[in-house]
Amino acid sequence: MARPLAPLALTMGEPGGVGAEIAIKAWNALRGQGLSFFLIDDPLRLEAMGAPVARLSSPLDAVSHFPSALPVLPLPQRVEARFGEAAPRSAEAVTASIEKAVDAALCGEASAVVTNPIHKAALQAAGFDFPGHTEYLAALTEKARMPGGRRRGPVMMLAATDLRTVPLTVHIPLRDVPMALTVDVIVEKALVVAEALTWDFGVAAPRLAIAGLNPHAGEGGAIGSEERDVIVPAVARLRAEHAIDATGPLPADTMFHAAARARYDAALCMYHDQALIPIKTLAFFDAVNVTLGLPIIRTSPDHGTALDIAGKGIADPSSLIAALHLAADLAARRLRS
Amino acid sequence: MARPLAPLALTMGEPGGVGAEIAIKAWNALRGQGLSFFLIDDPLRLEAMGAPVARLSSPLDAVSHFPSALPVLPLPQRVEARFGEAAPRSAEAVTASIEKAVDAALCGEASAVVTNPIHKAALQAAGFDFPGHTEYLAALTEKARMPGGRRRGPVMMLAATDLRTVPLTVHIPLRDVPMALTVDVIVEKALVVAEALTWDFGVAAPRLAIAGLNPHAGEGGAIGSEERDVIVPAVARLRAEHAIDATGPLPADTMFHAAARARYDAALCMYHDQALIPIKTLAFFDAVNVTLGLPIIRTSPDHGTALDIAGKGIADPSSLIAALHLAADLAARRLRS
Repeated sequence: MARPLAPLALTMGEPGGVGAEIAIKAWNALRGQGLSFFLIDDPLRLEAMGAPVARLSSPLDAVSHFPSALPVLPLPQRVEARFGEAAPRSAEAVTASIEKAVDAALCGEASAVVTNPIHKAALQAAGFDFPGHTEYLAALTEKARMPGGRRRGPVMMLAATDLRTVPLTVHIPLRDVPMALTVDVIVEKALVVAEALTWDFGVAAPRLAIAGLNPHAGEGGAIGSEERDVIVPAVARLRAEHAIDATGPLPADTMFHAAARARYDAALCMYHDQALIPIKTLAFFDAVNVTLGLPIIRTSPDHGTALDIAGKGIADPSSLIAALHLAADLAARRLRS
Repeated sequence: MARPLAPLALTMGEPGGVGAEIAIKAWNALRGQGLSFFLIDDPLRLEAMGAPVARLSSPLDAVSHFPSALPVLPLPQRVEARFGEAAPRSAEAVTASIEKAVDAALCGEASAVVTNPIHKAALQAAGFDFPGHTEYLAALTEKARMPGGRRRGPVMMLAATDLRTVPLTVHIPLRDVPMALTVDVIVEKALVVAEALTWDFGVAAPRLAIAGLNPHAGEGGAIGSEERDVIVPAVARLRAEHAIDATGPLPADTMFHAAARARYDAALCMYHDQALIPIKTLAFFDAVNVTLGLPIIRTSPDHGTALDIAGKGIADPSSLIAALHLAADLAARRLRS
């Protein structure tokens, strides 16, 4: 008999943004669908927004409450935020919400962590010392064992219905990308991706498509040398030493049409926009950000705090809903394996 | 009464590639549809492929022959090529075909030039001294007057049904892109694009979306400085000095979904793949390459010689057909204006 799945932990994110609104909308869309989550937030502020709230003393109670009320695990602090404004005064609550979610996932009271968007500048102004969510989650889970002894990330993946892309370099200036790419970086991240595809996504023999850096993947050295010096050796090592079905370097512009997408399970891209342009062009409203190589499962919607539309009731919950669905799928697979 | 449109001139391209095959398929698809073109090639080789051929002595005769036979303006030389093999021995015929097409367009015997893909390495091995088609066409038309005294390009545009993108730098290594971008380069190319949109595409007040270079368009200087130093001043100058409706720098990853595409008439991109990834992801088989800022109209299919499938009868003519349609549309508009 299958063990029941623990609920998903959803963090509050920046309280001045759209997090609470899309959480309430997602709860409304998902109640009665079998999946359940709890929000870690200030229950009073959710009630003020008109949501029926169930205050939890234990995360696991979320499952029984979910059909009738939005389960909220209360933070010790009140959250007083103004929509449209990211304020450092909320920073303590924002990080506490993330810490509680991670704790719940590590001790099995949550099956996965789904994070609402945070406002980095506001957190950093209050002393938060991480470039972003991903690095913070990596630090919080640093001492936990990787399931199955797998390789540790974090590696960022964007996932949509028929496309998964992984930027091998992320939030760095484009001019620094060529220097940041090494054979080791490509091989190590590719191995994290391959293990995650197998164990979390259920792809027995993952096919990795590796993009080139330059136009036409360098055209045999005529347009740039990084393919020859870095990417070709990385692909060769992945194939020879790790028996990974890696292909490339491929011209990035011809990798993402429908027939090309059918040939691989994930596209490994050399820089942020090479990975983000195709996924957001194809699936702007329902792409999901997944962090691979953490001891816990973590997904998040693929958008920011949207301060400009917060509090107006017009935020689209599609990406959060997709993130919740994907987290539940990944958790169910981890439970079975 | 409207003057009749002269036929389109179609070059042979690399004879070892798919050019002749897609030309025959395009003729079959388009006969009886009002549009007509002539191929500049060796008639014997087309007949050997089973096509009914009409040998032309004058390009203008193509119109009357088109419904019943593929009009071919004969080259003086025989073309003996093996499918799947690009050979320097064909170089003279390949360049002669391009020259004749340009001559016909300049003297009004052709309404536009549509070019089949060439094999640059094979041509260069035979002494061809240009990086590619576009530069050769620019040289061949150097002394001709720009219609309406407009700005001279060449500027490459990729056009699909609901997206037009322009790479401001093209076939250079990615590491050289930041250095190649200057305020003048962006402004000059944007002005060519704006004029072409107005005069060739019929867009009275073109809206140009200008992409950022770095992730999140630099996030206000936190991820790279080119937006602040180069792109912001270029957008400001386009607006202030030229009254162009230019917007940006925009984060490149959120510029290309359907709602975003509706907000502009062309997206100006900082490098090759930033422009080519979205267009080929959305319209792999029917995107068209257009050269803006030439005294003649020139389009081409957005793919290469496809040596690997040449002679097998499986090449897809969609992009060539789209290129012929677009060339005819642009020519009709130029005729009216």
